[in-house]
Amino acid sequence: MSAAPEARADRLAEAVSEAGLDALLVGDLVRPGDSSREAIADLTWLTGFDGSSGLAAVGERLRLFVTDFRYVERARLERPASFDLVQAEENLVDTLGSRLSGRVGFDPRATSVRERGRLEQAAADGVEFVAVEQLVDRLRRVKDEHEIASIAAASELGDQVYAELEEAGFGGRTERGVALWIEERMRRLGASGASFPPIVAGGPNGALPHAEPGERAIGPGDLVVVDLGAIVDGYCSDCTRTYGCGEVGSAEREAYGVVRQAQSTALEAVAAGRSGRELDAVARDVIEAAGYGESFGHGLGHGVGIAVHEAPRLSKRSDDVLLAGDVVTVEPGVYVPGEFGVRIEDLVVVGTDGVRNLSSRPKELLALG
Amino acid sequence: MSAAPEARADRLAEAVSEAGLDALLVGDLVRPGDSSREAIADLTWLTGFDGSSGLAAVGERLRLFVTDFRYVERARLERPASFDLVQAEENLVDTLGSRLSGRVGFDPRATSVRERGRLEQAAADGVEFVAVEQLVDRLRRVKDEHEIASIAAASELGDQVYAELEEAGFGGRTERGVALWIEERMRRLGASGASFPPIVAGGPNGALPHAEPGERAIGPGDLVVVDLGAIVDGYCSDCTRTYGCGEVGSAEREAYGVVRQAQSTALEAVAAGRSGRELDAVARDVIEAAGYGESFGHGLGHGVGIAVHEAPRLSKRSDDVLLAGDVVTVEPGVYVPGEFGVRIEDLVVVGTDGVRNLSSRPKELLALG
Repeated sequence: MSAAPEARADRLAEAVSEAGLDALLVGDLVRPGDSSREAIADLTWLTGFDGSSGLAAVGERLRLFVTDFRYVERARLERPASFDLVQAEENLVDTLGSRLSGRVGFDPRATSVRERGRLEQAAADGVEFVAVEQLVDRLRRVKDEHEIASIAAASELGDQVYAELEEAGFGGRTERGVALWIEERMRRLGASGASFPPIVAGGPNGALPHAEPGERAIGPGDLVVVDLGAIVDGYCSDCTRTYGCGEVGSAEREAYGVVRQAQSTALEAVAAGRSGRELDAVARDVIEAAGYGESFGHGLGHGVGIAVHEAPRLSKRSDDVLLAGDVVTVEPGVYVPGEFGVRIEDLVVVGTDGVRNLSSRPKELLALG
Repeated sequence: MSAAPEARADRLAEAVSEAGLDALLVGDLVRPGDSSREAIADLTWLTGFDGSSGLAAVGERLRLFVTDFRYVERARLERPASFDLVQAEENLVDTLGSRLSGRVGFDPRATSVRERGRLEQAAADGVEFVAVEQLVDRLRRVKDEHEIASIAAASELGDQVYAELEEAGFGGRTERGVALWIEERMRRLGASGASFPPIVAGGPNGALPHAEPGERAIGPGDLVVVDLGAIVDGYCSDCTRTYGCGEVGSAEREAYGVVRQAQSTALEAVAAGRSGRELDAVARDVIEAAGYGESFGHGLGHGVGIAVHEAPRLSKRSDDVLLAGDVVTVEPGVYVPGEFGVRIEDLVVVGTDGVRNLSSRPKELLALG
């Protein structure tokens, strides 16, 4: 446990006071007690705890951490010492709610309609609940050195797997076989897991941007989209490369060239102060000018940290403005239904002037075996 | 795709009408467009679709399926044909909300405060939203033959891994090393993944019911809690065994015997018509009578299906009453902080008179190498 969580709690408490609140609830108020890694990411950032059951309340004079029987021993060791630890009777929300007072902020994105009602019932008369969206996000999205080092390590580990894949080739394996191998290699190299199930999508399956790897054997002439990320020290990486299985046709090569140009143009444009909308447009303009405008249906990128999808967003409708210390993907794509797909994705640290690219694998179109 | 989803949609539509609703929303209204496998389980049950972005609305005269660009090709192939497919512009909730009319039910557990507000904004005047909790649960918890066969296959696959572990022993490996090996073996044997990250907790770590496998080498005299589940055909299994690494001490043996007796007593009591509370008490009484009452802090069990934790619950405060066709775990445990833990868990299909036990590994205390 680094010293970071205590400092983070102090900074959050300050933001909570500035927002005119006595406390902010942090954690998963949708499935409290049965939280996914992503749902509990705010709490992990705040306290270092990443079990599936925990809620915290933070204010100028309040540091409360609630968990249940299954995790109380672990929380005793892992939570920052400034947090009072309370073991929930049955339900975390009842236990937490009954200890609150004053104006209490909750994240309406991370609070279900049911748990919102339960909070109201558990709290004493006079407690006022206020929906507040961005207090943790604003702190969490900007990564410190330690976090960037973890993401860089995850990215390097992922790149090592790409290097091994480029060496080994597809070798007639199925998409699923390659995806399995990727996940095993990541774990064997020291990842605690995959940021998401690896995507290996050959030929027409490449046109499904989130294809599930199947029993299709990868064969000569296929373009193959490979999207993978590792988790190291609790932080995710995310990177996509598109390879040829042997030589691919001219339609594939042309689309690849367009995506590559869109990606490098966008990479050059990324810097603190640029908006997610602007940067998305930079890539989109290249793709539209080449006549593939209809084929780039997702956004340009997203923040990556404890969660593989977090703030900020780079998309057509994003109002986010990049800050130095944001870690974001830059991943344009072109998808031709029934034919093939291309996506190229790097993970970069946003600086005041340009980026530090954490993805090191080559981006020319490689023909693997 | 089996014929099941069309029949399920018909049954759900009937329940929706009976509840006086024109439509029910099904899917993840917390992170629409970025849903976890568990968050989207209702939709998977209803439509067979298990991508990370989808919402449906079902009523007597309504079958709507909304997804985004990334999944629209897959949804075209995978969703039941009776569902109209709509590609969301940007946000799934806006697209769905604008197509609703009349009285529309939503699940307050699966709907965030924010998305609830967004629904209201997207919908035409006069649309009335009603919180309804159990419509899908009541259908989904009772498994059909095909589902039971999938869960049984997942369970058998997990048992195969246990058999290999019993053969190979711990061999001085770390908890993490064994957990990695378990996950690899499950995938190599054909699982699409693990129901949850396998738990391998030796010695004092066994006292943390949801311990994360660490770098601790498993050594002679350790009790080792091993909890694992596989996913096969989209369905989960869940099973726990506790082994000795060589011979263990008398305190460990005694606690093991108590848990084993509690587990077999509870297993004998499980039948349709019994309540979750009653069955929990059956196991708890055995553990309390032996003087370990404080050490069994979690519930007796939970339903297992598409999600590894689903209805019904077997716990101190559960009002659920078992139905024939429920698939539930029976998993008492005793945890002695700083010393060791014991848990024994079987996965069973509830029948009208007793159970079909899907877990086949021995339950006497085995001393592995």
